[in-house]
Amino acid sequence: MMPELRQDWLSGQWVVFSPERLRRPQQFSFGEAQESSPEGDPFAEGNEHYTPAEVYAVRSRGGQANGPGWSVRVVPNRYPALRVEGEMKRKAVGLFDQASGVGAHEVVIETPKSDKELAELSLNQISEVLETYRYRMLDLMKDQRLRHVSIFKNVGARAGASLRHAHSQIVALPLVPPEVERRLDVAEEHFQKKERNLFQDVLDFELGDENRIVLQNHDFVAFCPYASRFPFEVRVLPRHQHCHYFSSPDGALVQLAEILKKILLAYQIGLNRPAYNILYQTAPLPGRFTGKWPLMESSYRWYVEIIPRIFGLAGFELSTQCAMNAVFPEEAARFLRETIDSLPEGGEHE
Amino acid sequence: MMPELRQDWLSGQWVVFSPERLRRPQQFSFGEAQESSPEGDPFAEGNEHYTPAEVYAVRSRGGQANGPGWSVRVVPNRYPALRVEGEMKRKAVGLFDQASGVGAHEVVIETPKSDKELAELSLNQISEVLETYRYRMLDLMKDQRLRHVSIFKNVGARAGASLRHAHSQIVALPLVPPEVERRLDVAEEHFQKKERNLFQDVLDFELGDENRIVLQNHDFVAFCPYASRFPFEVRVLPRHQHCHYFSSPDGALVQLAEILKKILLAYQIGLNRPAYNILYQTAPLPGRFTGKWPLMESSYRWYVEIIPRIFGLAGFELSTQCAMNAVFPEEAARFLRETIDSLPEGGEHE
Repeated sequence: MMPELRQDWLSGQWVVFSPERLRRPQQFSFGEAQESSPEGDPFAEGNEHYTPAEVYAVRSRGGQANGPGWSVRVVPNRYPALRVEGEMKRKAVGLFDQASGVGAHEVVIETPKSDKELAELSLNQISEVLETYRYRMLDLMKDQRLRHVSIFKNVGARAGASLRHAHSQIVALPLVPPEVERRLDVAEEHFQKKERNLFQDVLDFELGDENRIVLQNHDFVAFCPYASRFPFEVRVLPRHQHCHYFSSPDGALVQLAEILKKILLAYQIGLNRPAYNILYQTAPLPGRFTGKWPLMESSYRWYVEIIPRIFGLAGFELSTQCAMNAVFPEEAARFLRETIDSLPEGGEHE
Repeated sequence: MMPELRQDWLSGQWVVFSPERLRRPQQFSFGEAQESSPEGDPFAEGNEHYTPAEVYAVRSRGGQANGPGWSVRVVPNRYPALRVEGEMKRKAVGLFDQASGVGAHEVVIETPKSDKELAELSLNQISEVLETYRYRMLDLMKDQRLRHVSIFKNVGARAGASLRHAHSQIVALPLVPPEVERRLDVAEEHFQKKERNLFQDVLDFELGDENRIVLQNHDFVAFCPYASRFPFEVRVLPRHQHCHYFSSPDGALVQLAEILKKILLAYQIGLNRPAYNILYQTAPLPGRFTGKWPLMESSYRWYVEIIPRIFGLAGFELSTQCAMNAVFPEEAARFLRETIDSLPEGGEHE
């Protein structure tokens, strides 16, 4: 069966049905993420033949495609949720809305080594990963059927990871998720009413208050959001105005790497290596829809969310999309600041 | 610190901050739900002194309040996310929106026995639990500060449960969650445009198609939604038109008990006792807001969602609110139908 997108009649949410993925070894048992010994690890250097052929790699040391010598490598997901083949069609199925499962699903292998976590990579290596996202977005953008690119990282079974080797994922969709539309709408309305950027307003407010600030550098400010859904979640806002991740100025991603590394090390040390997700929130691809968000470039800003998955999402959250959180963000930010202050200088592990 | 409600500036979601809950024994370790031996189980018959004083109990066998003899018992949550004391105030905190954490957080203990799951209770006992929700909603409705009641059940650590003894929770909020507002808006718009009830349209469509139907009886139809977010999730729609759970006609909740019991037994047998949530989705309390959803009684319908938590929500879901699902609902419904057909007749365990 081909993958298929279906929209719920009540919530408006789209669901990607990808029966392909049921061939994944875990099937309906859902245990801890698998240990990856270098021999069995499909993402380790030397095991390139275990994955589909690469679509991109950083090979500053040289080496041939699909062989050793890379530092970051991008391959199609072996169990893709969406496929690059085929035409994008929307149709009605009785009362319901369907779209063809056209899109891309790629894996970014963040290091050739089996036993390194993102937090333990050098700043240079983390920057290469962040630059890789940019290259892949720019490449995927050429496909006019695609409208939105979602980049995320799952670490630990509780955050949805099924492999331990450090990696992240890129999903390119033929539609803009309604939740992303809503965020764009909020930002656009704010800009139209006030001629000010909502994200900049929040940044100014947070910097004035300081209670929720975790960390800042030349290009970024990391803070625990005022209405954090998850204990110790962190939002990272760029100081520069760009709605697309791929437009971030030269050098900015090195600054982001520094922020990510420190926060992830603080999680490791302060929160005992929790499962976590990193979400790269960027505007939909430009020029694919007419009339919507004409001021997107000024009204919206890309940002990053880092979410420890200490507690599971329970019935209350699923039912109402409200959340319960036992840790005020002011406390969480203080704890993370103190933990970061206690990190050994440098902290380079590679 | 008092509990507090805060709204996110971008998503519009409200978060209940309840520092009280950090006193829960698990704190930041999040293991499997605790085993409850009758001696240490705070919800077992004979251990009534372990809980706050009951607000309601079914005592058809007689017996005094806060002593043995009950079959269903409702107590305030020992670690409440919201408190009944205080005035409901909304205020601006700089750019942000805050509301006081007024509300109720109750636990419905579904059986006096430590080792029974909801699926294993008699139909009569399950009906008493469902009737208890109705009594509690009608009682909470008297408090004019409250606007919405969320009833849900978490089973297993992956679904957010922290205690094994069969129980569910009632959270009464001083505001209507934006996600609930959106559902009401969709139903109201459909009704205004078509003079038809959206839920009835979907029910008619599903009954005509049959592929996604799992089970039906006199008052309810259970089906796997066309755009199921989770593998094997089931939605149960009443055939009768009521927007509030507490308005369901006499006898209907016995019919709902039958549906729930069969589906939960099918999960136990067919899916190897997965963690799951049950969500009781009902309209906001009537008469608390002016002008909104004037046709609610005709446009919206209460319903139940049963969600196995086999896979965790990963970065893609958190980021986009879209979901990936490897099991088409047509397959899921067939599997559940076949599993239900194989259940021993009667299936009364108590």
